[in-house]
Amino acid sequence: MRVNSDALATSLAADRARVDAFLTRAFERRQSAEPRLDAAMHHALLVGGKRLRPLLVYLAGRALGASDEALDAPAAAVELIHAYSLVHDDLPAMDDDDLRRGQPTVHRAFDEATAILAGDALQTLAFETLARAAHPRLPALILTLATAAGRDGMVGGQALDLAAIGGHPDVEALATMHAHKTGALIRAAVHLGALTAVDDQDPRVAALDRYAEALGLAFQIHDDVLDVTGDTQTLGKTSGADAARDKPTYPALLGLDGARRRASELTEEALAALAPLGESGYQLAQLARYMIERDH
Amino acid sequence: MRVNSDALATSLAADRARVDAFLTRAFERRQSAEPRLDAAMHHALLVGGKRLRPLLVYLAGRALGASDEALDAPAAAVELIHAYSLVHDDLPAMDDDDLRRGQPTVHRAFDEATAILAGDALQTLAFETLARAAHPRLPALILTLATAAGRDGMVGGQALDLAAIGGHPDVEALATMHAHKTGALIRAAVHLGALTAVDDQDPRVAALDRYAEALGLAFQIHDDVLDVTGDTQTLGKTSGADAARDKPTYPALLGLDGARRRASELTEEALAALAPLGESGYQLAQLARYMIERDH
Repeated sequence: MRVNSDALATSLAADRARVDAFLTRAFERRQSAEPRLDAAMHHALLVGGKRLRPLLVYLAGRALGASDEALDAPAAAVELIHAYSLVHDDLPAMDDDDLRRGQPTVHRAFDEATAILAGDALQTLAFETLARAAHPRLPALILTLATAAGRDGMVGGQALDLAAIGGHPDVEALATMHAHKTGALIRAAVHLGALTAVDDQDPRVAALDRYAEALGLAFQIHDDVLDVTGDTQTLGKTSGADAARDKPTYPALLGLDGARRRASELTEEALAALAPLGESGYQLAQLARYMIERDH
Repeated sequence: MRVNSDALATSLAADRARVDAFLTRAFERRQSAEPRLDAAMHHALLVGGKRLRPLLVYLAGRALGASDEALDAPAAAVELIHAYSLVHDDLPAMDDDDLRRGQPTVHRAFDEATAILAGDALQTLAFETLARAAHPRLPALILTLATAAGRDGMVGGQALDLAAIGGHPDVEALATMHAHKTGALIRAAVHLGALTAVDDQDPRVAALDRYAEALGLAFQIHDDVLDVTGDTQTLGKTSGADAARDKPTYPALLGLDGARRRASELTEEALAALAPLGESGYQLAQLARYMIERDH
């Protein structure tokens, strides 16, 4: 993610280092029965990654007054869910991708069975990590993560995505798919940060959810745009993969300029939603702006 | 599972019906974004199954004084983890099985991508179901389930099992593999029941853990024996599958009689471990006896 503001860039880099250190400790707390499984999990989790979801946990949580220490476990848990989903989505029976975060995908670097198991164990570790922190609102935190990750969220979205290949969904159907596949976990990241700080009766929690919903779709549209305009080396994954697979995308439906315009409108919606937070929403606003300027 | 005692049989059947009703409610609480995913999850979870792990949750929990209502969520959660693991273990890249619980496996009845996603969503639903009950010891319950299910438990055991194919492990290595692959979740079932009733400082919790450890291995050895002596129709899965796959088994290492003897010794260990529970351990003892008399 390219950022214009040096202060924001420094802050995001510090948060990335923070969650990586926490993830490393969570990962090293125990060893697998089988070292190859550990190596595959490490490859999936700790090699590369923008850490967007953990950043949203930290920024949303801090905006409502949570401490960094309280935010570590939810930030790590949401990244663990994201990492597991990438491993499974890349499998031959799913998107069949060879490259991820600039590295061979887990089933290419190891093998298919190990990739399935590594993904499974990463999901388990997400809930273990969240539970270990024993936050007073743990039931709500687990429900937030689980409903976003499960069949009515991310996994359901991946199923919709696979079902749509070769079909001709309209813009609304595409938005529904993305709201599940990537939107749900982005909203969960913001919600986890918020719930770490306050309970869900606080009106700022709903404001943050509106921010997250608009941001999640803007992020996905920008991702579709990058798949057309980016090159494989910068992206760290195969460019043009959507079109090659006959996947419906925003640029295909709205044109490249139309897709860019829609991403900008959604970013403005996200910024407007932050109004009730006043000054404390500053970093979240900065992050939204820079998310649609990133080139990978 | 064939049982000699009519009273026990009636009680086990009632508990199976109880957990099935609770699982059905948990399953129907929400719908997937994609109906095919729901159908695959339903096939994996609600068609057949002995419900051994839920039975252990109920019997262990009641032995220490928990209410049936408090035991429903942990009983359902452990079965959800078990069901997800069967779907993934049956995949072509893993054990490549066509038949499970007398029905086509999920990837045969649906397709491979749907089976991967259905397994993923069943795992998520396990943690969601446990969290929804919001037990005061929720952190300990989640940690119990997650550590048993993850890389140092069930998933690690499956990785060990795959790594062992065609190799020549000794009895100790085989026991280590089973302690992870099936033993960890059986111990977790008993521990979840116990922790629902009392905290882990109660000495009966450790006694129940010794029971569960011996029982889990006895169960697995009996499973290996059934793979040799059973027929496909009674088992509901392909008989002789272990030998055909050159998988190490207890009958292969100890002979059929030696394996049966070892299962009996372990069952005696399990029964001895129940001594501190006195009368309240009666049903757990009955269950252990009948588990090595089952023919499927």
